[in-house]
Amino acid sequence: MTAEIISVGTELLMGQIVNTNSQYIFKRLSELGVNVYCETTVGDNAQRLQNAIETALSRADTVILTGGLGPTVDDITKEIAAQVMGKTLKLHEESAKAIDEYFKKRGIPMPPQNEKQAMLPDDGIILENECGTAPGCIMEKDGKSLILLPGPPYEMQAMFESKVAPYLKCGSDAILYSRIVRIYGIGESQVQQELIDIFENQTNPTIAPYVKTGETTLRITARCHDEEEGEKMISPILDEIQRRLGTFVYSTNDEELEEVVVKLLKEKGKTIALAESCSGGLIASKIVSVSGCSEVFIESAVTYSNDAKMRRLGVREETLKAYGAVSFETACEMAQGIRTTSGAQIGASVTGIAGPGGGSEEKPVGLVYIAVADENGVNAKELRLGNVRSVVRERAAKAVIDMVRQSLIK
Amino acid sequence: MTAEIISVGTELLMGQIVNTNSQYIFKRLSELGVNVYCETTVGDNAQRLQNAIETALSRADTVILTGGLGPTVDDITKEIAAQVMGKTLKLHEESAKAIDEYFKKRGIPMPPQNEKQAMLPDDGIILENECGTAPGCIMEKDGKSLILLPGPPYEMQAMFESKVAPYLKCGSDAILYSRIVRIYGIGESQVQQELIDIFENQTNPTIAPYVKTGETTLRITARCHDEEEGEKMISPILDEIQRRLGTFVYSTNDEELEEVVVKLLKEKGKTIALAESCSGGLIASKIVSVSGCSEVFIESAVTYSNDAKMRRLGVREETLKAYGAVSFETACEMAQGIRTTSGAQIGASVTGIAGPGGGSEEKPVGLVYIAVADENGVNAKELRLGNVRSVVRERAAKAVIDMVRQSLIK
Repeated sequence: MTAEIISVGTELLMGQIVNTNSQYIFKRLSELGVNVYCETTVGDNAQRLQNAIETALSRADTVILTGGLGPTVDDITKEIAAQVMGKTLKLHEESAKAIDEYFKKRGIPMPPQNEKQAMLPDDGIILENECGTAPGCIMEKDGKSLILLPGPPYEMQAMFESKVAPYLKCGSDAILYSRIVRIYGIGESQVQQELIDIFENQTNPTIAPYVKTGETTLRITARCHDEEEGEKMISPILDEIQRRLGTFVYSTNDEELEEVVVKLLKEKGKTIALAESCSGGLIASKIVSVSGCSEVFIESAVTYSNDAKMRRLGVREETLKAYGAVSFETACEMAQGIRTTSGAQIGASVTGIAGPGGGSEEKPVGLVYIAVADENGVNAKELRLGNVRSVVRERAAKAVIDMVRQSLIK
Repeated sequence: MTAEIISVGTELLMGQIVNTNSQYIFKRLSELGVNVYCETTVGDNAQRLQNAIETALSRADTVILTGGLGPTVDDITKEIAAQVMGKTLKLHEESAKAIDEYFKKRGIPMPPQNEKQAMLPDDGIILENECGTAPGCIMEKDGKSLILLPGPPYEMQAMFESKVAPYLKCGSDAILYSRIVRIYGIGESQVQQELIDIFENQTNPTIAPYVKTGETTLRITARCHDEEEGEKMISPILDEIQRRLGTFVYSTNDEELEEVVVKLLKEKGKTIALAESCSGGLIASKIVSVSGCSEVFIESAVTYSNDAKMRRLGVREETLKAYGAVSFETACEMAQGIRTTSGAQIGASVTGIAGPGGGSEEKPVGLVYIAVADENGVNAKELRLGNVRSVVRERAAKAVIDMVRQSLIK
C-alpha cells in the first residue's frame, strides 16, 4: 500500500508552527509497512487544496490529511475533500451530540458555529474524537481512500492510534516491527564506534541512530510478517548492544528516563524527593508525567532563592556564603536536606547557572552541580552543560534522573 | 514574488527527523514578503524529485530545495536540479579548495567522495557554506530560479541569511509585517464571534486565528513597504481587538503568559511562590524559563503527597479528610500556606486529577482546583480540563498563571 500526506493550514506556510504531525504519521506509516513517497503542505485555500488532493490521489492508494476541521470559515478540508470524492456532507447526529456534550462538560454553551464540525460525509467512516470537538472521517471511492484528521497533535495522535492504524493494517501484508533502544551518558559517535560492525552488516533488521537533547536513540527495524517474527529477528541484536554498552542503555522499549526511574523505585520499594534550583521544577514535572508516580514521589522543593534553600532544606547560611549557591557543597546539603525533611529514601538535587545572566569567569553559565543522597550518604557531580538556558535546564534534569537511576541499579 | 519549498530526504519520510527547515524558511519568506503556497517533501528518489521540481517550477517564480547536497550516492538534489534546468555540473575549484580546508582544520584527510560536493553548475550562483562542506547554489532560467541549500539546519540557516535573503530582497518591493495577539480564557469560536466583522472586512491587513493548547492566537499581517507603515496599518485593529476582548488579550507582542506575569510582578514589585500538586512543577518550570525571574520568584513546593501538603504548606489534616486533596478547600489552604511559609506577596496553588487513574464519578479525571492568595485573601476556581494527562497538566499550569495575571491587573 502507498500513502501520501497533505498538511493543511496557512499557519504552517507562515512558519508559525512546526509540522510535527507529518513526522508522527510518517513514523507510524513506516512502522505499519505503508510506503510514503510524498508529503504536501498547503494553506487554507480551496483551489490549491483541491489540486493537492487530486494529485495525491492520482499517485497513492491512501491520502491522509491533517488540519482544517475546525469550526471557522477558514476550515475547508472536509468540504473540499467531499467535493473531490463526490460525497455529500450532512449533519451526523451522534457527532453533534458528542460536540454538545464536550462543551456541556466544560460548563460552556456550544457556540453555534461548532455544529459545522458535525457535518460529515453520508457514506463515510466517522472517526470519533476522544480529545476534542472535531470528528475525523474516511471517504472511500474506487479502491482509494481519503483520511481526514484534526490538526491539534494530541487529538490527531489519539485518533490515529485508535482508528486509523487498525484501518490501515487491514490493507497490508508485511509489517515493519521496531524496537527502540535508548542510551544516556555516551555520545552518538562513541555509540557508533562501539557498534560499527553491527551497523554495517545489517540489512534486515536495520539499525538507525538518531540524537535527542543529550542522548542517543537506536531504532532497530525488522521487515517481517508479524510481531513475534520481528521480535525473534531483533532480540539477538538487542542482547549484543546491551552487552557492549552496559548500563548506558536505559531502555530497550522506548521509555523515557523518568519512566525507567519510577519503575525502578517501585520495584525496590523506595521513595524519592527532589530539591531543584536551576531546573525550576522540570525534574518534578518529568517524574509527574509518569502516571502512577504518586506511589514513589513525595515532593519537590523548587528552592529558587537562597532563603528558600535554607528555610525548606536546611542548607546552612555558612555554606552558601563560603561556597555559593552553585557549588558542590550546596548541592550535597540540598540533597541531604530534602531527604531528611521529606522522609524519602532518596533525595536528589540540582543547582546551577542556566544563564543567560548570572555567570562569572569562575562560575560560567552552564556550570551545574547535581547530588543524590541515600542511606549510604551523598554523592555529587560537577557538570558543564552549554550556554543556552533551556538546554542547560533540560540536560541538568536528565542528568539528575540518570544519576538516580545509576544509584538504584548499583 | 511566489515561492515553493521542496524538502528532500528519505529520513524525513521515515519520520526520523522533524522538518524544522521548512518552518524556518516559511517564516523568513513571509517576513520578506514572498508568498508561499505549497511545500513538498520527497525522498532521495530521482524520478519523484524531478516531478516535484517540475511541478513547483510550473507554479512558482522561485523554488527552494533543502537537503541532498551531501557526499554520498543518495544525495542527488544537485544532479536532478541541473538536469531539469538544463545546466552542466563541473568542478568548482574554489569550493573544492574550501572543502579540503574544512577537513584540514579538523585534522582529517578529505574523504574522496566529498569532492562530489564541489561539482556545481557552470553558470549558476555559488553559495559558499560557512558552517559545513556542502556549498549551495542558485540556478536561473527563463525568469525562474532554483535555490539549493544544505539539509543540516544551522548550515541552511547561515546560508539563507547571508546569501538567500539578500538575493530574494532584490526581487521584492513589499514586505509582510505581522503582530501576534495572544488570548487566554475564551475559545477560538467565541473570539471569532466577537470579531467576525473585523475578520471578514479585512484584506490588508489580514487577520488569521490559530489555536494552541488552551489559548487562541491572532496573526495580523500587513503588506507594506516598511515596518513603520505596517505598524500604522495594524495599530487601530489592535486597539479595537483589545477594546472588545478586554483582559482576555494578554499580549500583543507574541509573549508567553509566563513572560507577561513575570513582567507584571516586576512592575508591581511583588514576589510569588507556588504550591503545585497535579501540575508537578510545570508552573515553576514555565516561570523559571523566563530569564531574570529570580527577582520575583521565591520557590515552588511541589507537594505531590498529602503528607507534603501538610508538612510544607500547613494544609490541615481535617481539610484533607473532609474534602479530599482535590478540593476547593485544599486549593485555598495550599495557596495561603505557600504564601505564609515563603513570605511571598502572592501564593498560587493547583490540585487536581490528571489521570489516567485516580478519577471517580464524583471527582472525574480532569477536575482541577486552582487558587491565588494575596493581601486581600484567597480566591479559588473549579475547572474541568479534559482527560489526557499531559493536556490536563498543561492547561492547569496555564490557568494558574493566568489567574495570577488577572489578580495583578485588577
